[in-house]
Amino acid sequence: MARQYDPRALVEALSGGDRRALARALSLVEQGGGAAREVASWAWPRGGTGYTVGITGAPGAGKSTLTHRLIAAARREAAEVAVLAVDPSSPFTGGAILGDRVRMQDHVLDAGVYIRSMATRGHLGGLALAAPQALRVLDAAGFPWLFIETVGVGQAEVEVVGVADSRIVVVNPGWGDSVQANKAGLLEIADVFVINKADRDGVDEARADLHAMLELSDLPSDAWRPPIVATVAETDEGVEALWAAVGEHRTFLEETNGLGLRRRDRLRAEVRQIVARSIESRTFEALTSEELDRLIVEVAERRIDLYAAADEVMRSVEG
Amino acid sequence: MARQYDPRALVEALSGGDRRALARALSLVEQGGGAAREVASWAWPRGGTGYTVGITGAPGAGKSTLTHRLIAAARREAAEVAVLAVDPSSPFTGGAILGDRVRMQDHVLDAGVYIRSMATRGHLGGLALAAPQALRVLDAAGFPWLFIETVGVGQAEVEVVGVADSRIVVVNPGWGDSVQANKAGLLEIADVFVINKADRDGVDEARADLHAMLELSDLPSDAWRPPIVATVAETDEGVEALWAAVGEHRTFLEETNGLGLRRRDRLRAEVRQIVARSIESRTFEALTSEELDRLIVEVAERRIDLYAAADEVMRSVEG
Repeated sequence: MARQYDPRALVEALSGGDRRALARALSLVEQGGGAAREVASWAWPRGGTGYTVGITGAPGAGKSTLTHRLIAAARREAAEVAVLAVDPSSPFTGGAILGDRVRMQDHVLDAGVYIRSMATRGHLGGLALAAPQALRVLDAAGFPWLFIETVGVGQAEVEVVGVADSRIVVVNPGWGDSVQANKAGLLEIADVFVINKADRDGVDEARADLHAMLELSDLPSDAWRPPIVATVAETDEGVEALWAAVGEHRTFLEETNGLGLRRRDRLRAEVRQIVARSIESRTFEALTSEELDRLIVEVAERRIDLYAAADEVMRSVEG
Repeated sequence: MARQYDPRALVEALSGGDRRALARALSLVEQGGGAAREVASWAWPRGGTGYTVGITGAPGAGKSTLTHRLIAAARREAAEVAVLAVDPSSPFTGGAILGDRVRMQDHVLDAGVYIRSMATRGHLGGLALAAPQALRVLDAAGFPWLFIETVGVGQAEVEVVGVADSRIVVVNPGWGDSVQANKAGLLEIADVFVINKADRDGVDEARADLHAMLELSDLPSDAWRPPIVATVAETDEGVEALWAAVGEHRTFLEETNGLGLRRRDRLRAEVRQIVARSIESRTFEALTSEELDRLIVEVAERRIDLYAAADEVMRSVEG
């Protein structure tokens, strides 16, 4: 059993279909550090077949019900689905995410569906690194469809969903008035807009609002134009149309080489992030805490400013 | 007039009481880059007299009404007040923050109150750097009280409010059930808890909930124990007690040397952040985009993984 915790053995087991090994590997990724890195490294050459769909939107917009319906849509094509439910703003909802999602329980007995929640550990940005790695582990496990769903709609959530190949942004009728939405960020990442709870008043206004946003964004003529799909997730209304829109976006990306470009851009951003973090930790390892403390006292006494202190840190490490 | 945009001249003017120079300096800080750095550097030796109070809590908790009441409480002591209203999750509310705050308008004609809103520019983390610099500019302008208020309660907001000397966390009766609150993050930063809208049912439960959280956190016996104050900001009920609690926390920090420690910890974290950013941009300036592109293609084709690519970036820059 102890051997199962070895990252390489875990990845071999999970790519052979071992769900307990998968759960353990995801826990290692969530914890971060050296083991996370090893898991991700071993998983990388084994992945590449999964397609990732991101789902974001304001709390209460109906994302989890919609995700439940999309799982069913994918399962009607007999495809296996992995779901990563992410909450970047709350360290305490790791359990609650799934607890709240009664509908998700419908899939508990379906071996073709794997659901995992992930919450922030420690500082902001931790999930931005862990979420794509978790998706890669799920990819190495062979799921052809990978869904990633976030709880909120802030900048952190947008960054997390930004790792997906196709990104669904869920709004409701009346969203423009009620939500202090991160509109610019949402517009930038949306490949498909969903107006969920479309049995309520205000669908036409929401649609007009989204159209106006798209007009303003001045897309090039050969760019993908995000379709706007109305759904009532509770009754499954419009969900097939939404699933079809995701399929069309996927076809568009694949036929225009957009998929490769998008994935490479994402890899580039991630490599930058890894480099920046390594260099940062190396810098502060090289600096003794006495040196840093001395500098901070000088700053606190306003003899030097923060930037001068930062310059001195860099000189002392490089010298 | 052109001379007014010179960072040094701006800082001299604003510390002499020139409000237009203050507004310009804050705009430079918000924009980031070299001018922001210069403004912050010139402002640093001129500051040190202001005391910062942070106010955070879920949207709708009544933070802006409470801030309005706290401004009035400070003004009764004849002290000048600067308010920085921050929204880390929305790039589009720069104007809206103040537009929504009808009550804040009460102070528009009071020259002893200065209110400024600040929204996210660009990526996450931008405000985490800009907000403390903006506070230092307000400090250099001589305001003895600096309030910083955030819109939401996610991890980004908690980091922004973390720069304050005393931090107020606003909840409502029933908050435990309704809000997917960042409880751990809030508990860590709270110096004073406020149960606002205390004319509603559930105050006792909210108080018991907060007490239970504090029990669990296992504070050392000589640590500050966050008091829990009930308020009805709409009617000013409890606001004097809240203001007194802030004053007690300030006295505690000053008498235990906690204030100096807290400020130095914050400066240390900021210096680290500045160093990390400088090193990151320097690293990628040294790397040609062809080299990086070649590496990314190797990653995309799964011949190497992201960490191996990151290692190679570091070798090529250092070699």
